Amino acid sequence: MTGQAVSKRISYLGPEASFTHLAATKVFPNSTLVPFTTIPECIEAVAEGSVDYAVVPLENALEGSVPLTVDYLFHEAQLYVTAEVLSSIQQHLLVHPENRDAESFEAIYSHPHALAQCHKFLYYTYKNTPLEQYSSTAAAAKMVSELPERNIAAIGNEFSAHKYGLDILQRDIHDFHFNHTRFFVLSKSDHKLTDPSHDDQIKTTLMITPPDDDRSGVLHQMLSVFAWRRLNLSKIESRPLKTGLGDYFFIADVLADENETMMRGAFEELAALGCTVKTLGSYYTYKS
Amino acid sequence: MTGQAVSKRISYLGPEASFTHLAATKVFPNSTLVPFTTIPECIEAVAEGSVDYAVVPLENALEGSVPLTVDYLFHEAQLYVTAEVLSSIQQHLLVHPENRDAESFEAIYSHPHALAQCHKFLYYTYKNTPLEQYSSTAAAAKMVSELPERNIAAIGNEFSAHKYGLDILQRDIHDFHFNHTRFFVLSKSDHKLTDPSHDDQIKTTLMITPPDDDRSGVLHQMLSVFAWRRLNLSKIESRPLKTGLGDYFFIADVLADENETMMRGAFEELAALGCTVKTLGSYYTYKS
Repeated sequence: MTGQAVSKRISYLGPEASFTHLAATKVFPNSTLVPFTTIPECIEAVAEGSVDYAVVPLENALEGSVPLTVDYLFHEAQLYVTAEVLSSIQQHLLVHPENRDAESFEAIYSHPHALAQCHKFLYYTYKNTPLEQYSSTAAAAKMVSELPERNIAAIGNEFSAHKYGLDILQRDIHDFHFNHTRFFVLSKSDHKLTDPSHDDQIKTTLMITPPDDDRSGVLHQMLSVFAWRRLNLSKIESRPLKTGLGDYFFIADVLADENETMMRGAFEELAALGCTVKTLGSYYTYKS
Repeated sequence: MTGQAVSKRISYLGPEASFTHLAATKVFPNSTLVPFTTIPECIEAVAEGSVDYAVVPLENALEGSVPLTVDYLFHEAQLYVTAEVLSSIQQHLLVHPENRDAESFEAIYSHPHALAQCHKFLYYTYKNTPLEQYSSTAAAAKMVSELPERNIAAIGNEFSAHKYGLDILQRDIHDFHFNHTRFFVLSKSDHKLTDPSHDDQIKTTLMITPPDDDRSGVLHQMLSVFAWRRLNLSKIESRPLKTGLGDYFFIADVLADENETMMRGAFEELAALGCTVKTLGSYYTYKS
């Protein structure tokens, strides 16, 4: 149990009231949270030591792309995952209080991914209303709060509604109700942040680069290493190495601690197969 | 060889001069190209028959996220991949011709992913210049073209520079030089678009849902089905099913035609293992 002290500084992918901000407040309710414009800036802030932790989206994110985080961790940074945060994504239709009785709008503003996540709602309820792209859900909410004379709406989270004094005209307008975003909490030192309510399932994230020859066979061999030991993978994904087309590495989440006997055996065999393994550490899950 | 007729209508993820627009012109130089705001809108346009093909980003994209395309194809649409387009992503620093001699800028505008892709260049060359997020690289270029009196720059592609009459102050400012974006060309009918210069490597994209029990073992068995037949996978990725945490399906690219004997055998064995297989079809690659 560390990292909860008041004096800690945390970088997160901004702007304020973003989904990443919401995830960061879950893990660090009493720390100084510093927004950054891009994922590499967030990650470098912790690598350089100007903050203690970075909170960045990893999967299914609204504000940034998964590949950016994965690739930056693989190519550029030597950091550890100290926790992950799983947040359910809830999108609401937000309006200025003066327009709360409106039945139609000039336009609806949001981040392109948020507009896409609410596609069916928008299609059936506001079919002829123009959809306008904005750089983030929080920025769209801010704009709506500043222009009460325009009859416009934003799509965003509850945090944005509170921050910018907007009314929630309709709740939970996203199409898929089991839609989660996954965030990593990164640090320079390899340790675990724990949550009093965590469910005890530990996870380890590995980045595995196969040897140059016969990649298809190696993937099958790699999985054999885990399968016969009953080490469960909750995720596996191939990513281009960026050294040329057709060169890949794998990111895998294993439901075990990296220090378990079976995991140490797996690391040895992966090395014997010619694979290079970079571990991002073992960590618990915060849910919000 | 189909789909090149002048009368075809093509939806793409806009706005105009986006990287997806550039990819669409590569495959359909003489067709009517129609921009849409979101990936689901692009895909539904072809599903409903208002256009003949949709061009959407799949991997490592700037304008949209991979999961949106993959998940929409899995959950919502019954469409086929008729071609893929691989584009190298080249980012340039764009300025209004009146500001071509500027050595510093008030601010640099672009899509958050483009700002992130040029992180090192910006860090070393314009360390103290504010970075401002915009909804797309093309929209940022348009804004710079409309405000010559402000000493600002945009990051975007060559297409945007031409379209909005901007000068390219510095070329190729992206950090990774083997950075490609992959696009799918979707249709309601299962056929192949070919390019006179294609390199003959056919690819088939499969979406495989394992049976409910013992997922880890099944992934290993699934890969055995391909491995002993020497069917090479160029990509594999697990994606949440959205029916609850921990439920996954897999998207796999196999370097073979779905009608080959070995592939038909693989489909039969996957079914025998309890897997559900949805094929998106076999297709060739356009490079740009």
